[in-house]
Amino acid sequence: MRFVRFEADGGARIGVVKDDGIVDLIDAGSRHETIRSIIEGGSAALAETRALVDRASASAALTEVRLLAPIERPGKYLAIGMNYGKHLEEADRLGVARSSHQVWFNKQTTCITGPYDEIDPGVTEKLDYEVELGLVVGRTAKHVSEADAPAHIFGYFVANDVSARDWQFHSSTFTMGKSFDSHGPIGPWIVTADEIADPHALDLRSFVNGERRQSNNTRNMIADCWAQIAYLSTAFTLEPGDLIATGTPEGVGVGMDPPLFLKPGDVVRCEIDGIGAIENRVKSG
Amino acid sequence: MRFVRFEADGGARIGVVKDDGIVDLIDAGSRHETIRSIIEGGSAALAETRALVDRASASAALTEVRLLAPIERPGKYLAIGMNYGKHLEEADRLGVARSSHQVWFNKQTTCITGPYDEIDPGVTEKLDYEVELGLVVGRTAKHVSEADAPAHIFGYFVANDVSARDWQFHSSTFTMGKSFDSHGPIGPWIVTADEIADPHALDLRSFVNGERRQSNNTRNMIADCWAQIAYLSTAFTLEPGDLIATGTPEGVGVGMDPPLFLKPGDVVRCEIDGIGAIENRVKSG
Repeated sequence: MRFVRFEADGGARIGVVKDDGIVDLIDAGSRHETIRSIIEGGSAALAETRALVDRASASAALTEVRLLAPIERPGKYLAIGMNYGKHLEEADRLGVARSSHQVWFNKQTTCITGPYDEIDPGVTEKLDYEVELGLVVGRTAKHVSEADAPAHIFGYFVANDVSARDWQFHSSTFTMGKSFDSHGPIGPWIVTADEIADPHALDLRSFVNGERRQSNNTRNMIADCWAQIAYLSTAFTLEPGDLIATGTPEGVGVGMDPPLFLKPGDVVRCEIDGIGAIENRVKSG
Repeated sequence: MRFVRFEADGGARIGVVKDDGIVDLIDAGSRHETIRSIIEGGSAALAETRALVDRASASAALTEVRLLAPIERPGKYLAIGMNYGKHLEEADRLGVARSSHQVWFNKQTTCITGPYDEIDPGVTEKLDYEVELGLVVGRTAKHVSEADAPAHIFGYFVANDVSARDWQFHSSTFTMGKSFDSHGPIGPWIVTADEIADPHALDLRSFVNGERRQSNNTRNMIADCWAQIAYLSTAFTLEPGDLIATGTPEGVGVGMDPPLFLKPGDVVRCEIDGIGAIENRVKSG
């Protein structure tokens, strides 16, 4: 299933994509009022939802509604840096210290926006994009092994880990430049894990104004999704609905010679085969 | 006022300290079911609460209940590193790169626990303490100047920024070693801002098994509370209930020669004059 949130009558609704439309889950009789509640409900909630969607017909066309971030504000949005070989080389050239372990930082959850929302540059003068495979945690994870990790994933989405490179390098922690308001577009939906045969065999690409900038495959992650879950959950608990951005490949603007940053009016498209695409325009003025 | 959360009948209750007891706010007739709701209600909610507390009598003795973290799970828990001069020198000796800007990292909100809860070492072999003045954001803050920052603070608490030094230095971002489950004890209450004449004139201290380890004054912060709010809010929005740990002074275990880490059974006490003290035992076995 592809879970969405969308705007209707001034509020947020939850739904599932069916053909070219959306089944509104509340109208269809769902006991769950949020995507997170469905995730927390586990396989039973998923089966119930599937049965509702099978019986219902779509009430809105996908093209007629504004899609929102496909999950309510999560508890955590974690992201890994330097997780594709050639992107690591880009980071080397920028003077980022190599690490013997996975490099994790937070995107503040206030930065999360919808799949077609505008990106506000705010005060940065070095606005950049990063296409990434996103994971949604399904079951609570603590001390989960790589072998058991797949059972803790609810689904997948496309993320643009929008980065303010000047503020990112204010300190070695990256914190300040990864979370400007609106710098976390995700979506367009959450594809449930059963529909992705192998998350490590997905082509992902980004484009700026139609020009291809990044193109790689998730098989080239240095730490794969399962290693990420294992490492994170050794330190702390991952909860249902937590989001993880699994790293970006080479081709970001800051890695170019000379660097090429986003400017007002630019349109960034991030796409992953088998999931979909998000497209975000940089706000003007 | 001093806001608390406490356990009663197996659930979480909200209250205000009165003499040596707690006024249960729901029993007293509050329209607000959470501390966050009171914060979001602004000065009107604060005035209403004050009136309720004035009329009510305490229903539980402070010593008879288990105090919980004095606020529900926040949206963000941000913390600043290297923010007292002599602690910065400790970091220098550990090889931490100096930064020209404030150094921020996240404590995952899952790490937050109550003022007297146990600290679970988890897998770390280098468990350490850091006493810090904590802030609770009151009003939404975006692009707030230092001059306007005080109006955005709801109150203050004592924080122990418990740190797993081995995992902290897995990478330059600190993320992994700052958020082990139970490594975020806060409390014992939130003292409202009106009761703290100057947050930059508070003695703060930590003790391990009664032996003093840290002792300094918040006047010695490098970036003071207002500069912190201004800097953070230039990048992203701070929301009511967000937590900020404002940095620790020198005297942490990792800075000693040789380093002296916490071990099972150790009791760490963190206290700040005008606020109170939290005390956490390191879990055994």
